[in-house]
Amino acid sequence: MPSNSARLAQQMAFIIEADKLKNIFRQSYISDASRRENDAEHSWHLALMAITLHEHANDPDLDLLKILRMVIVHDIVEIDAGDTYIYDEAHKQDQAEREQKAAERLFGLLPSEQAAAFRSDWDEFEAGASPEARFAKAIDRLHPMLLNHLAGGKTWSKHGVVASQVRDINRKIGEGSQALWDFAQDLIEKSIKSGSLPDR
Amino acid sequence: MPSNSARLAQQMAFIIEADKLKNIFRQSYISDASRRENDAEHSWHLALMAITLHEHANDPDLDLLKILRMVIVHDIVEIDAGDTYIYDEAHKQDQAEREQKAAERLFGLLPSEQAAAFRSDWDEFEAGASPEARFAKAIDRLHPMLLNHLAGGKTWSKHGVVASQVRDINRKIGEGSQALWDFAQDLIEKSIKSGSLPDR
Ligand SMILES: [Ca+2]
Repeated sequence: MPSNSARLAQQMAFIIEADKLKNIFRQSYISDASRRENDAEHSWHLALMAITLHEHANDPDLDLLKILRMVIVHDIVEIDAGDTYIYDEAHKQDQAEREQKAAERLFGLLPSEQAAAFRSDWDEFEAGASPEARFAKAIDRLHPMLLNHLAGGKTWSKHGVVASQVRDINRKIGEGSQALWDFAQDLIEKSIKSGSLPDR
Repeated sequence: MPSNSARLAQQMAFIIEADKLKNIFRQSYISDASRRENDAEHSWHLALMAITLHEHANDPDLDLLKILRMVIVHDIVEIDAGDTYIYDEAHKQDQAEREQKAAERLFGLLPSEQAAAFRSDWDEFEAGASPEARFAKAIDRLHPMLLNHLAGGKTWSKHGVVASQVRDINRKIGEGSQALWDFAQDLIEKSIKSGSLPDR
């Protein structure tokens, strides 16, 4: 085992490197539509959603701490791999490979047993391999839909996204929370009615 | 009890209002010194620090979930009350009153028993009333010191802050974690040596 201060130095190197997540900008705008959102803000908002909404998960007995660990680290790989827009099928093809390499390097900054724990949380999230992961993925999908609805559909219209695509991509929300998928479908209807999402 | 969908509507109103935290900018710059950091990013970075560093708390038996709940919500009051710079003694005088009113309104958007739980976490954090709160406050103090050191002391020099002030204000880090206070004192020495913090 490295000494306590050697461990702390490795941990701080990881925390400092993670600061770069504040410069990874997503396709979503913040709710006032003034600018795009970055991954660090998005991850914070997911954590707040997890704390506030976990009672609506399909499985009522979730481990909230595990969900929070997953949402706090889930996008850190994008420091190296970049943000991949969920409707961008071409770019999604090599996404997994780019993100695996990124996970290797970034979590590898930590002391080895801690690196393994972070990696295991991230793998579980990616695979949707537990009720906690499926709930975390549900709010990760719901969040940009909510922002996009609030921002008048700015990202959807920029990328020519229509209602049937939004339904197809986000249907999986129901695997984590039927209540949140019901809410999401309601958002889609409202966005269609207000003219910010084409009903095709 | 309100119905499930009435509860969800209240919770979503809170989550949407909280999006404004992304527009509350702090005095600290992100580590590449390109722009100031906002409260949402700061809160995410604290959560990552809590997950990574909680082993260094003075009390080894902390409840990490409680720390995460506290750091995720600790700055939400600043949506109404604004950010108060830690070295700004004049502005700090009515800070508590402004923040109490803000907590009332913002947590009050939630279903009442949930509002009480969020408020209780926030009160505990503010008062430093538990080992978890003291550790959360320790990383909340360490974080801007770390960023400021990385950004070449930009905020310190802008506000004419000197080493003795940084030591006085941040000494309380040791109440949550002696190891992190040792690390912080080392940062102060490095900042003095590199010329980004006057040794007075
Ligand atoms: Ca603050």
